[in-house]
Amino acid sequence: MIRQLIDRIQKTNAPVCVGLDPMLSYIPDHVTEKAFHELGETLEGAAEAIWQFNKEIVDHVYDLIPSVKPQIAMYEQFGIEGLKVYDRTVKYCQEKGLIVIGDAKRGDIGSTSAAYAMAHIGKVKVGSKILTAFHTDFLTVNPYLGTDGIAPFVDVCKEEDKGLFVLVKTSNPSSGEFQDRLIDGAPLYEHVAKKVVEWGADCMDGTYSNIGAVVGATYPEMSAVLRKLMPNTYFLVPGYGAQGGTAEDLKPCFNKDGLGAIVNSSRGIIAAYKQDAYKKFGPEHFGEASRQAVIDMVSDINRVL
Amino acid sequence: MIRQLIDRIQKTNAPVCVGLDPMLSYIPDHVTEKAFHELGETLEGAAEAIWQFNKEIVDHVYDLIPSVKPQIAMYEQFGIEGLKVYDRTVKYCQEKGLIVIGDAKRGDIGSTSAAYAMAHIGKVKVGSKILTAFHTDFLTVNPYLGTDGIAPFVDVCKEEDKGLFVLVKTSNPSSGEFQDRLIDGAPLYEHVAKKVVEWGADCMDGTYSNIGAVVGATYPEMSAVLRKLMPNTYFLVPGYGAQGGTAEDLKPCFNKDGLGAIVNSSRGIIAAYKQDAYKKFGPEHFGEASRQAVIDMVSDINRVL
Repeated sequence: MIRQLIDRIQKTNAPVCVGLDPMLSYIPDHVTEKAFHELGETLEGAAEAIWQFNKEIVDHVYDLIPSVKPQIAMYEQFGIEGLKVYDRTVKYCQEKGLIVIGDAKRGDIGSTSAAYAMAHIGKVKVGSKILTAFHTDFLTVNPYLGTDGIAPFVDVCKEEDKGLFVLVKTSNPSSGEFQDRLIDGAPLYEHVAKKVVEWGADCMDGTYSNIGAVVGATYPEMSAVLRKLMPNTYFLVPGYGAQGGTAEDLKPCFNKDGLGAIVNSSRGIIAAYKQDAYKKFGPEHFGEASRQAVIDMVSDINRVL
Repeated sequence: MIRQLIDRIQKTNAPVCVGLDPMLSYIPDHVTEKAFHELGETLEGAAEAIWQFNKEIVDHVYDLIPSVKPQIAMYEQFGIEGLKVYDRTVKYCQEKGLIVIGDAKRGDIGSTSAAYAMAHIGKVKVGSKILTAFHTDFLTVNPYLGTDGIAPFVDVCKEEDKGLFVLVKTSNPSSGEFQDRLIDGAPLYEHVAKKVVEWGADCMDGTYSNIGAVVGATYPEMSAVLRKLMPNTYFLVPGYGAQGGTAEDLKPCFNKDGLGAIVNSSRGIIAAYKQDAYKKFGPEHFGEASRQAVIDMVSDINRVL
């Protein structure tokens, strides 16, 4: 799976990923009004607004990028109706040739992680039938429970040629509270990084492993250390743009081959039309604003590579 | 919310929680066959089997216990259809007077945790309406991202009188891989415990805080330390029974007032009819087997308190 991702990154010359994390406040009024008019101010109405918003953005950017990362929480907040649109968005993006990273940060004890793995990247047996539930290409997972909480995901990656991004060093302000604490002289995130390398050693797909790591753009010195510790691990890098990470901050996430990282931007792309730089497009043309924001993001990143 | 839970624990004299974590392999053939006959070997058929299974168990145990803990992963693996049954199960249990602990172990950066909090214990604004998505009384959450990943959940607990159980020391075999590593002379789980106390200080609801902790039954020496570190924190204790924890192991999780912990059992209760001790009930009477297993669990635990 990581080979497919790299292939598309090289074809598009865009090591980026658009975070489809729609908040209702990002969606232009004409879209929500139409959805509410049809379905009321209901969970269904909200879900429909999100779907129309997502579709317009995907239609405007899919040819420029290798992948998208829908954040499942933004759909889960609208319950079943929201999750239907998550599923619909995943499938639509895959039809458009995009690699889909399900941002779910799941993780639990072994038997439960196995259920999550089936839910999101694997298959589930029902009687004599083998079915799929949600079905993304990659999934983000949380390592707090250790190896037996991650192993079931890794097993499914091997069987189904899927991939993971394990949280190592996250982009949020208080990520250091536990992740940076020193254990035998090295921060916790380095210990997690070593485990990620171990978990991924058996999942190589070309030069890189299908088991990747989440490494926030907001802590570039730490990214540099992690890049050395995990030479064959792909990094999913959140935190660029709206969260404060700059293109310069991203540099240490990449290897000398220009590969090794895929940078996510959510708000900066999907709510571009609200930014001064893209206001000229107007809310009616929010898809075009997102397209321009992707073009600008790609050139900003390629400038430093 | 914790006061309501304690109240029901005292009324039932049962500091226990039944884990509604249905795997298809736990469900008696006559239940799955009926569901597959009606709806096919489909996600819908699987979901229907789970619903019938859950309902029968809840109907047989609801008067004996204060609460249930559905593990959302077991529903998520059947996609939208599975999640509909999660929602239906939550609502049914609440109608039966049970407190519902959503075992979802969510956690992310602030804005995303806020969406998860709305999804599971809060409310979501859609236009001028305030709606609910999933709606449990407590939620389990993962602390790896630190304070800003937990704060949005805590805020919702304050607004809505809901509760959390934050993963501190989990029951699985490799939980020690990161959780037990020493930081300034104390294991990571103790540092997390201190933060849980901090997060919960502002959420007191009587003697205990609405912000609880997950502390596995399988490591009793560690439970004893955590009990002292977190005197006003309720523990949700997984790992009893099928995972290896005994009643004696549970003792250190409780305070001298006989309160402070609620012990979960999933497989041991819901698949009781498969155990030698309850085989006499037969698969047709699996609900009665579960009822007897609850009675036995309660007396086993009360014996050591």
